[in-house]
Amino acid sequence: MDVVEKLAQIFKEFPGIGERQAKRFVYFLMSRTSAYNENLSQLITDLKKQINQCRDCFRFFIKRNGETLCDICSDPNREPTLLVVEKDSDLESVRKSGIYKGKYFILGGLVQIVQKNTKNFVRIDELKQRVKNNGIQEVILAFSLNPQGNYTDSYVRGELQNVAEQKNVKISSLGRGLSTGTELEYSDNDTLKNALQNRQ
Amino acid sequence: MDVVEKLAQIFKEFPGIGERQAKRFVYFLMSRTSAYNENLSQLITDLKKQINQCRDCFRFFIKRNGETLCDICSDPNREPTLLVVEKDSDLESVRKSGIYKGKYFILGGLVQIVQKNTKNFVRIDELKQRVKNNGIQEVILAFSLNPQGNYTDSYVRGELQNVAEQKNVKISSLGRGLSTGTELEYSDNDTLKNALQNRQ
Amino acid sequence: MDVVEKLAQIFKEFPGIGERQAKRFVYFLMSRTSAYNENLSQLITDLKKQINQCRDCFRFFIKRNGETLCDICSDPNREPTLLVVEKDSDLESVRKSGIYKGKYFILGGLVQIVQKNTKNFVRIDELKQRVKNNGIQEVILAFSLNPQGNYTDSYVRGELQNVAEQKNVKISSLGRGLSTGTELEYSDNDTLKNALQNRQ
Amino acid sequence: MDVVEKLAQIFKEFPGIGERQAKRFVYFLMSRTSAYNENLSQLITDLKKQINQCRDCFRFFIKRNGETLCDICSDPNREPTLLVVEKDSDLESVRKSGIYKGKYFILGGLVQIVQKNTKNFVRIDELKQRVKNNGIQEVILAFSLNPQGNYTDSYVRGELQNVAEQKNVKISSLGRGLSTGTELEYSDNDTLKNALQNRQ
Repeated sequence: MDVVEKLAQIFKEFPGIGERQAKRFVYFLMSRTSAYNENLSQLITDLKKQINQCRDCFRFFIKRNGETLCDICSDPNREPTLLVVEKDSDLESVRKSGIYKGKYFILGGLVQIVQKNTKNFVRIDELKQRVKNNGIQEVILAFSLNPQGNYTDSYVRGELQNVAEQKNVKISSLGRGLSTGTELEYSDNDTLKNALQNRQ
Repeated sequence: MDVVEKLAQIFKEFPGIGERQAKRFVYFLMSRTSAYNENLSQLITDLKKQINQCRDCFRFFIKRNGETLCDICSDPNREPTLLVVEKDSDLESVRKSGIYKGKYFILGGLVQIVQKNTKNFVRIDELKQRVKNNGIQEVILAFSLNPQGNYTDSYVRGELQNVAEQKNVKISSLGRGLSTGTELEYSDNDTLKNALQNRQ
Repeated sequence: MDVVEKLAQIFKEFPGIGERQAKRFVYFLMSRTSAYNENLSQLITDLKKQINQCRDCFRFFIKRNGETLCDICSDPNREPTLLVVEKDSDLESVRKSGIYKGKYFILGGLVQIVQKNTKNFVRIDELKQRVKNNGIQEVILAFSLNPQGNYTDSYVRGELQNVAEQKNVKISSLGRGLSTGTELEYSDNDTLKNALQNRQ
Repeated sequence: MDVVEKLAQIFKEFPGIGERQAKRFVYFLMSRTSAYNENLSQLITDLKKQINQCRDCFRFFIKRNGETLCDICSDPNREPTLLVVEKDSDLESVRKSGIYKGKYFILGGLVQIVQKNTKNFVRIDELKQRVKNNGIQEVILAFSLNPQGNYTDSYVRGELQNVAEQKNVKISSLGRGLSTGTELEYSDNDTLKNALQNRQ
């Protein structure tokens, strides 16, 4: 396999990229200057050196002075709730909205419905430890609303049950119902059911 | 304006039909037999003769023996809640889902944000009367989640306030939050906010 | 089956209409006044009475004084070419573009690849007759570019061969190649092949 | 600007990538191992070292033994026609289709309608030189069918006129008309016009 094929294969692993676009990326890089590519290459090498993974929430952040906690986890004014999300970009979306004042925890993935060794894929032990240690009063599970997200919700609730009872921590999940733009006529049964149950 | 243009103009008023498709409908009818068109024509004439509008919920239904109440409104086993929807097809969607056991009320439209004589367009007086008369214990407002639906929700709440207090009727709205398929990363701020507020 | 179901079933036969939208059409008509529906009903009945099918091109047109030829076929200034299209709406699109100065012939459908009694479905005998009679110098086959359109093109060419030779009539088909918006990179092989063969 | 923002900015320049996806690429790389990123980084650096740009057609190709001509340009059996395309991926698409047996020339871009110093952006001088030197009998202009592609077609024809006359080289452009899937009813006027003019 030559360098073109090897590069195309890596780009195909990038989120949302298919074979055709992966190939176009390679053509794109071929047509850049050597300096452009050297710069990109250097930045990719630097990336892992300049970021840390937060010791508490497992979010990636750019380290300035060798900190081990991200700016959110080290902020004493955040409320004592813990929003558990799948991945960094979920955290980023919620953070940008400015509507949440508590802390975060990145689970690192969703739990596959048929899966052995789940603990190798998601940070469930780390989450238990986090709930045990840090004065958290409520854990809010915030996964996408699809079968895998639902399954992950149940899984995490089950795993946290003991520590939550011991530490008197509430466990909740994001509310369900109509979301922006939902038209009643075209709603699926689950959404209608949630919207009806959660009426207020 | 000739018959072709007149027909195309009416078809353009059909829900979801633009100029081009309206024209195609006319071509379609031109290419049918006279018998086909006569049959369609007769059915359209018959429609209004064979349906009634329910005295209580204002839903259209096929009358069998001159009833003035639809099968839902005349069913003594329905729970004493009233789901207020915009239109017949909303009612139909909820009814098909089988998740709601109470009664319905069809408002007949959404309230325009800038609108005079709202009462000419929606059945707000009829709704007040319905709440006053019928042993209803909860009114559930069930409008689509868009600016007009939100505005209608506030409007109806305001109008019902007095009668609801007098009669001790609860007013609620469908729950808001994540709906089926919502991905956290791509959620809008309102949906995130509702999902967070309505967590449970 | 009641009137609502019967009407929904007919609307489902309208071009591009599925079950759900057919049902919405019925709700729409239920909510109109009787007068509105009577008017629509009357127009549908009138349609077949007020239109004629052109004796020469088989296009539908509104008759004013009992004419049997449409305005295009009775226009002595049209050029002596015959554009053979599948259906009225194709003719209408070409006519509106203003780029074609000749006459038309509506075949009445495409030929199914597996089909008995093709003559019952398309006006191939009428087309032969038209080519035999009317001083036509060129027949231009203008079908959509898909397998059925291609098959129809071959079929009609085969059927017209004899009369075209006798009458010294040229047979051509619409040109193939890049169409507006085609990007070279994303073109399918057939389009590339046609574009290359028909370069000029 | 930190390494995350710098990387996101470069990824945003990749073909078809917006701000959001660029950011996701960076998150993706953050979550990979250092080894993974080092490998990608190395491949990007290697790319420009392992490819050459063909002296004749300006296509990029992987050099094996320091060749300066790509496998197509050095193939004595290719026909003496020159297909002029915008970019490498266009060439790749045509090559894969297997329908073209001649040689290629990569112009390096389309000509902007308002543009100074066009020669800095496209290889028009190199193309003239190529036509002058190499026993080419026909130049086939093969640009996408949009305003810029059309403009580039005219521009290149104008620029090549002299040398083409001197050398008795024919200039043609890809054929225009219906492309695969085109439905007559929904065709734009230009496509109908081309299809009619280029009928055969």
